[in-house]
Formats: sequence, C-alpha cells, structure tokens
Amino acid sequence: MVETVPARRGRRSRQGQSETTGAQLSAANRFTDVRNTFGGQRALSEDRVAAIHETALRVLEELGLRVLNAEARRRLTAAGAAVDESTHMVRFDRGLVANALATAPSLITLKGGSATRTVTLGGDHIVFVPVGGPPHATDIKRGRRAGSLRDAKDFFRLTQSFGVLHMIAPNVEPQDVALNLRHLEQTKAQLTLSDKVPFVYARGSGQVADALEMVRLARGLTSEEMAAQPYCYTVINTNSPRQLDEPMCQGIMDFAAAGQVSFITPFTLAGAMAPISMAGALVLQHAEALAGVTLAQVTRPGAPVVYGSFTSNVDMKSGAPAFGTPEYLKATIAAGQLARHVGLPLRASAPTASNIADAQGAMETQLSLWACLLGGVNLVQHSAGWLEGGLSASFEKFILDVELLQIVAEGCLPLDASDPELAFEAIAETPVGGHFFSANHTLERFRNAFHEPMVADWRNFETWSSDGARTATERASDKWREIVKEFRAPASALTSGEAIAEFVARRKQEGGALPAGA
Amino acid sequence: MVETVPARRGRRSRQGQSETTGAQLSAANRFTDVRNTFGGQRALSEDRVAAIHETALRVLEELGLRVLNAEARRRLTAAGAAVDESTHMVRFDRGLVANALATAPSLITLKGGSATRTVTLGGDHIVFVPVGGPPHATDIKRGRRAGSLRDAKDFFRLTQSFGVLHMIAPNVEPQDVALNLRHLEQTKAQLTLSDKVPFVYARGSGQVADALEMVRLARGLTSEEMAAQPYCYTVINTNSPRQLDEPMCQGIMDFAAAGQVSFITPFTLAGAMAPISMAGALVLQHAEALAGVTLAQVTRPGAPVVYGSFTSNVDMKSGAPAFGTPEYLKATIAAGQLARHVGLPLRASAPTASNIADAQGAMETQLSLWACLLGGVNLVQHSAGWLEGGLSASFEKFILDVELLQIVAEGCLPLDASDPELAFEAIAETPVGGHFFSANHTLERFRNAFHEPMVADWRNFETWSSDGARTATERASDKWREIVKEFRAPASALTSGEAIAEFVARRKQEGGALPAGA
Repeated sequence: MVETVPARRGRRSRQGQSETTGAQLSAANRFTDVRNTFGGQRALSEDRVAAIHETALRVLEELGLRVLNAEARRRLTAAGAAVDESTHMVRFDRGLVANALATAPSLITLKGGSATRTVTLGGDHIVFVPVGGPPHATDIKRGRRAGSLRDAKDFFRLTQSFGVLHMIAPNVEPQDVALNLRHLEQTKAQLTLSDKVPFVYARGSGQVADALEMVRLARGLTSEEMAAQPYCYTVINTNSPRQLDEPMCQGIMDFAAAGQVSFITPFTLAGAMAPISMAGALVLQHAEALAGVTLAQVTRPGAPVVYGSFTSNVDMKSGAPAFGTPEYLKATIAAGQLARHVGLPLRASAPTASNIADAQGAMETQLSLWACLLGGVNLVQHSAGWLEGGLSASFEKFILDVELLQIVAEGCLPLDASDPELAFEAIAETPVGGHFFSANHTLERFRNAFHEPMVADWRNFETWSSDGARTATERASDKWREIVKEFRAPASALTSGEAIAEFVARRKQEGGALPAGA
Repeated sequence: MVETVPARRGRRSRQGQSETTGAQLSAANRFTDVRNTFGGQRALSEDRVAAIHETALRVLEELGLRVLNAEARRRLTAAGAAVDESTHMVRFDRGLVANALATAPSLITLKGGSATRTVTLGGDHIVFVPVGGPPHATDIKRGRRAGSLRDAKDFFRLTQSFGVLHMIAPNVEPQDVALNLRHLEQTKAQLTLSDKVPFVYARGSGQVADALEMVRLARGLTSEEMAAQPYCYTVINTNSPRQLDEPMCQGIMDFAAAGQVSFITPFTLAGAMAPISMAGALVLQHAEALAGVTLAQVTRPGAPVVYGSFTSNVDMKSGAPAFGTPEYLKATIAAGQLARHVGLPLRASAPTASNIADAQGAMETQLSLWACLLGGVNLVQHSAGWLEGGLSASFEKFILDVELLQIVAEGCLPLDASDPELAFEAIAETPVGGHFFSANHTLERFRNAFHEPMVADWRNFETWSSDGARTATERASDKWREIVKEFRAPASALTSGEAIAEFVARRKQEGGALPAGA
C-alpha cells in the first residue's frame, strides 16, 4: 500500500492568493439554483408511510389540537372543524384536511430583489438558508455574547456574499434594539444589505404588517402585486404536543392572507415533546403540520405553506436535544416520504448540538445535511452558522458550513462523461509512469477543472506548520472578517433605501409595534 | 421561530459516566455486519458507464500496460496477451479481460479468528477498515513523530475495541523495527491483539510467505484449508499511468496463488497521474484495475480480487492531492457503477487532506464516507484515523471517525414503524403542551431508544464551559487513552500466541526477510 502522498509543495503563491479572492467574489453568484440529485431515498415502506399518515389523521380527528387563537377557531369552525370552546380543542376531520391539501401548492416561487434571487421550493429544488433565531452571536476572537444589530448586519453581509445561500434568515437576535423597534431594524437591514428573499418574524400582526410594508416598498410593488406572489417567509413552530399558540395562529393567518410563505414546523423532539419512537414523533409532527396547513388554507385557499420537519431525539439521561444523530437521519428521510405523500414542499435543517465550531460541530452538521439531501428536503434551514442547538450563531461555523454547502452544490452538478472527457488520446500520449500535467487535454481544462475550496488547506504538514499550524476554524475567522470588510451592498438593494428609511423613521416616531404578548 | 433550546441540564452524573464506559465495552461487538441502505446511486447514465468500460478496454487492447515482472509477463503471454519483451508493454485483448471477469468472484468471504469476525465483501455489505500506510503517528499530547511498534500496537488495540471496524489495517509504519523483521512484528501484533482479519503487505514473496504462515498458525489451519478460503488481504496500488511494478505484480500473483484477497487500486489522481477530467481518470482507473484483476485470474482462476477506486483530484496550483471534494464524491459514485458493471466487489476510502483532526478533517472524511455509502462501496479503507493525505495516523481522528462510522452504521438499521411504534395511545394520554417523559410508551423504551455517542458533548454551553470548554478532539484524546489502558486481547487471539512467538523467534534467527528491492 503506497496510498500516502509524497512531498507536496506549498499551495499558493502570493499571486495565487489574490486569484482566490477573485473566486470568492464570484461566490456571490455561484450555485444560485441547486437541484438535488441525491433525494428520494426511503426510510419507510410505502405501507408504513400510509400508516403514519392515517394515524396522524386519527390524531387530528379523534384527539385534536388546542388552538389558542379565537379567530383561528372561528375560521376552522366555519370550515367544518369540531371546536370545543370550553377547552379550545379543535378536531379536524379528514375531509377538511384533504381539502386543505388539495389547495396547498406543491411548488412555490418566491421573488427576490433581482432575477437571480428568485427561489423555488418543491420538486428537486434544494434551497439553503443560514442559521436563524439564536440569542447569542459568537466568534473566536470576541467570544460568545448577546446578539447585536451589528452582528445581525454582519451575518446578512455574509449571506449576501454566497450564492449558495438562497434566502436570508434572522441569524441572530439584535438584543440591543428595543422590542418595539427590533422588527423595523431587522427588516431594514435585510432589505438594504441584500437582494435575497427576507425573513419576517410572526410576532404579532403589528410587526408583520410593518415588515410586509417594507418588503413591498423595497420591491416597488403595489399591494395587489405583493398579495399575488410570495416575496418573504416566516417560520411557525407549533407548541408540541398538539397546541398552536396565539402568535403562531396569528402568523399563519397573517401570512396566508398576505399570500406570503409560512414554514409550519412542529417542534417534535422524540422522548420529550413527542413520543420516544421516531415513528411516533413523525405521527405527531405530521398531525401538527397538517393542522397548520389546514388553518392556512382555510384562511386563503392556495396560500403558500411548507411542511416543516424538525423531528430529532433527546439524550434520555438529561433531556438535552441531539442533532446529527442516526435518528435524525432516518426521521428526515422519512419526513421526505411523508411530504411527498401529501404533495407539499419540505423544510428541514442542518443543526448540531456542539458548543463550538470543532470536529463535533462539523460532523453533526454534515450528517444533518445529508439527511436533508437524501430525504429530498426542499429547504434546509440553519444550514450555516448554527451552534449549541440554536442558542448561538457562529461566524466561523458560518464559513465552514458554506464551504460544505458549496461542495455539496458542486457535487449535485453532472459528471461530464462525454467522449472528449474520456481522454483516450491524453492517456495514449502520456508516457507510462509519467504525468498528465502537460497534456493538451489538461492544459485546455486546468483553470476550471476542479472546485476550489475556501477554507480547506491542502498544503503539506511542514508548510502548514511553518505558516502557524492554524485550524480550519482559525482560517474561517480570517475569511469572514475579510468578506465583511470588503462587502458592498448590491445595487438593487440600494434603490429603495430612502423609502425604507423614511418608513422606519415614521414608524419609530409612532412607537413601532410590540411583539404579541409583550 | 423558537428553534432554540432552552435550559439544558448537565448531561451526565458520575454514575452516568460509568454507564457510558459500559456501553463502550460492548462497542467491540456492535455493528459487526453492516448492510448499506444508501448505495446504488448513479453519477453516470448507463450508456456512459458502458462508454467508460469500452474506452478502458481500448486502453488495454491498443495501448497496454508496462508490466515490470517477468513472471507476470510470462503468465499473461501464456493466457493470450500480446507482450513486447523489449519494452515490457503488455496488451490485453477484451476476450482475456472477459475471461478474467468471468472467473473473479463477486462475493468474497474472509474468515477471522472467531465467528463474529467473518467479513463479506460484495452485495450490500459495507465493511469499514481504519487508516493504513502512514509513516507518522500523531496525537495531541505527543505530537507528530515517526511511527513505532508501540503506536502500531495501540492502533490494533483500538481497532479490536470497535465492532464497526471490521478488519485490521497497517495503521502506521513501525519505523523502529528493522526492515527485514518488520513484517514479522507487524503480523504478530495483529494476530495476538485482535481476532479480526489481518492485513499483509505485498513487499516481496519472502515477507508474504512469512505472514501467510503466521496467519495459518494463528487460525490453526492446514495449508490446504488456508488455500481454500481467504483469511487475510493486501492492497496493490498500480503505478499510474499504466504501469505495474515488480513487487505489485508479485503481490498479485502471490496472493492469488494463496487464495488470499488483493485489493487492486490504481492511484489515479486526476490532473497528475491521470487525465484531468474525472471521466478520463475513471477510464484509466478502470483499465488498470482490470489489468490487475486479469493477472490474478490468470494466476489462479477464481482468485478473490477487489476493484479498488482511489480516483480523486489534485489542486492544480500546487499538485497537492485533494480529498473530500465534490470530484471525489462523483468519481466514487461512478466507480460503484463501474464495479457493478463488471461484477466485482468495490473498495474505496474515506480520506482527508487535513493536517489535523479539526473541522476540515471532519468535513472531508465525512464527505468521502458518504461518497462510499452512496456509491455502494463494499469496503471503506482509511475510514478512521487518516490525516495529511495518508502521511499521518492520528489517534484522536481515529476516535472521531469511529463515532461517525457508528452513527452511519446505526443509520443503516431500519426505522421501526410497526403499529406499536406509531404511539397513538401515548399521544392520546399525554396532555396538550405537556411532555412524554412519563408515558408508559417512553418508560418501556428509554434505555435503548437512541444511539449513544462516544465523544459528542450535548451539554449546554455553561456546563460545558465550566468543565473546561474542551473540543471534540480533546475529548477524543481521553477516550483512546482510556480504551488502550483497559484493553484486553480476545481469548481467541491468545491461544496461538506461543506458536506465533516461536515462528517469529526462528525467523528472526534466520534473518527475517527484506522487502523486495531493498
């Protein structure tokens, strides 16, 4: 066995480095439309897919969900659901659910601020979205801290800089902005730093109305145009088991009414908020997702909704959530089958429970990502920068994860095996035991033959050691700082800047809007 | 979006930790037979598989290989190959190759030292083998150094301790043992520390004969029994492009004659020793592998041979080999199609070019591993502990990689979705918004519900921080030391210890055997 690699030269000249930077700039426009070639795997036989669907329908028909929002109960009653107003329990018969599934679209197109930012959810499309929701930001120089607007903006800059990230996410909570103004600043930052599809929190109708108006201004739309086509999205987590709270119901109704996209994602951690068996957790997830989809369709038939899967397991010793587990792998592949069974686009995630951007974090995130790829997931949330089960957004992890997403996106492109690529002549002309460096076949192709990594260091041990022996995480630290420093907002995001600034100034004077329940 | 995880308790009590150790002891007997449920993906259309095969046959027929071993040329001539003795070029007509493929087995069974150590190569079997070949050993306390016999033995102890590692590999070169005695010590260590199928280097007939005799003694076989069934394996790398050197030819012939297994693996790095196009590199790989298979079958029809795929790419700026790339992903999936096309078991690897066990190492190794899984690879070499493109064997990386292999092996087990697992009653009895911790359904299953990790730390940030904020790599350092310290050789490996010791003592007195060419 001689499968070791003799003397390697140092990788890059000074000139090589500046070429790399050029490649990174163009990274903003690469992989903007990824088709998943690995999807459609099966973790369940077809009869077990049907059994989970049937059992979920029984849960909806016989047990029901508690729906805390009165208007939601009213709409569901009007559509034929059985509502007990003393307990707020709503039972959904299978005809009502079937009607909802009949009107929910299986393919959703969201328009961004420029042509290449249009995003399609469904079919073999796979869309990557970075981390959303953490209260903390972290990087290896400044450490872990409460998220700030500055952190949020830096994450938006990074998101805009990579074509493989297809929509914006609320990467970190800007805790230095008052609650009544936070949605204004968060939406403004998204719309002025990026031309990608923005995220809006469903934290009450007042905030949602502000954010939707800002999206309308940014895209230069009439209200009718805005209502006719999705331009932004939100995420709705049910309160598993079997409960939809006030703001979530309101969010589903607000987004459905506005024709904007809801990802309805039960928070079904097996062994805690869901049955300990993965099949049981999937039953509960399926029931809750269908309940949310039904509320959206009752509000506005045809409203764009996405089936969200977040089913993973917990550590039974401590109750701590676990990600990147074999259970998550199987549950996500099975969720793909369930989503296809009901004809809805599927959202899942690429999370990790690791506290830092180390080998555990890399391992769990990639395992989760493959779960999504194999399951035919259409939208992978939290696919860059997530740590600590979602409590921190990490700048270094963001870069490391984008590296993986780019590799996977490149891996989805076809292997060209047309006749000229078979290289018979190059093999014939290259001496036995020689090398192909100077073959014409090589010279014609060498510039773009292979995917170039952003962080991976392929230099030999001696060169790498004498250059500081830095880890991938340390190199990622340089990378994100460089990108943020060189960042320029896209022209399309700047045109509406004034209108948005005026709107925000006015709404601030008016006191903004508090989140529901605050 | 509330996809963050509130207050988590510290994971393990003191008692919990000793339970974990118990689980690790049984790790030696888990996952001993893994069936790959992810294989059979396609990177090529069927007509392009046929085109690569046809072009490889043209390479063999029209261009040929240089075969440096005279006896190999003699045997190939006798079988009908066209040999030019002035250049040592051998051209293989397609009838000769077809005959070889007709006699090569598609399923190979290797017997170990006890019943659970039998290994099957082919079909949906997937077999994991740790790192082989590096000159250096490394760990985070002692650093990188020339490999020693002590290091080699510690790796064998680790290999024996994990059921998911199915055969032994020559993890690190014991450079402190003289060249003429090294094979004796290396084989003795494998056979006395482990009951798994051992590796033998093809470094000349003298060394091979010694090692095979030691395997025969260890298994208590007659020479006839040994010749009738594989008990060990070797790896043959061709000198790409288009050359088979002396010891490799000799190794193929020695192993075929002895009825033992050769993995015939061209070293086809696209852009260097192979065409820059992945399809062209696969043509060369296919041609060279078929040439090696033909030599084995000419030597002994029915000899057990495995198709080896090592096709990856290089960094075109430096010539440095790259692993865990999108090119490797596609080439390995395509190699799966080619191996199935010719009906041979397939070997590939899970390598990385990273210099340390960091996030890059974790990322590249897992990407490579998924390439193997999706390609339906039957044997994954270098699947634990490989660093630096094969120049170092790392103890921490070994543990981190085994963690991943266990997760993947668990992920290949079926998702139980039988009626009791659908948990309708548990959902019915659990209060809305409550939790499932105390449901009967949970209590009946909680002990073995989920895969337990070895290194992953799922504790919350505060608990993890106050416990030293250690990386996964640092935790892996403790783990391998603990396993080596507590190691006990299996009883089956001890019974033949005396016979092996006697043989080694005698052969040392006789001067051992130098590697061919030394």
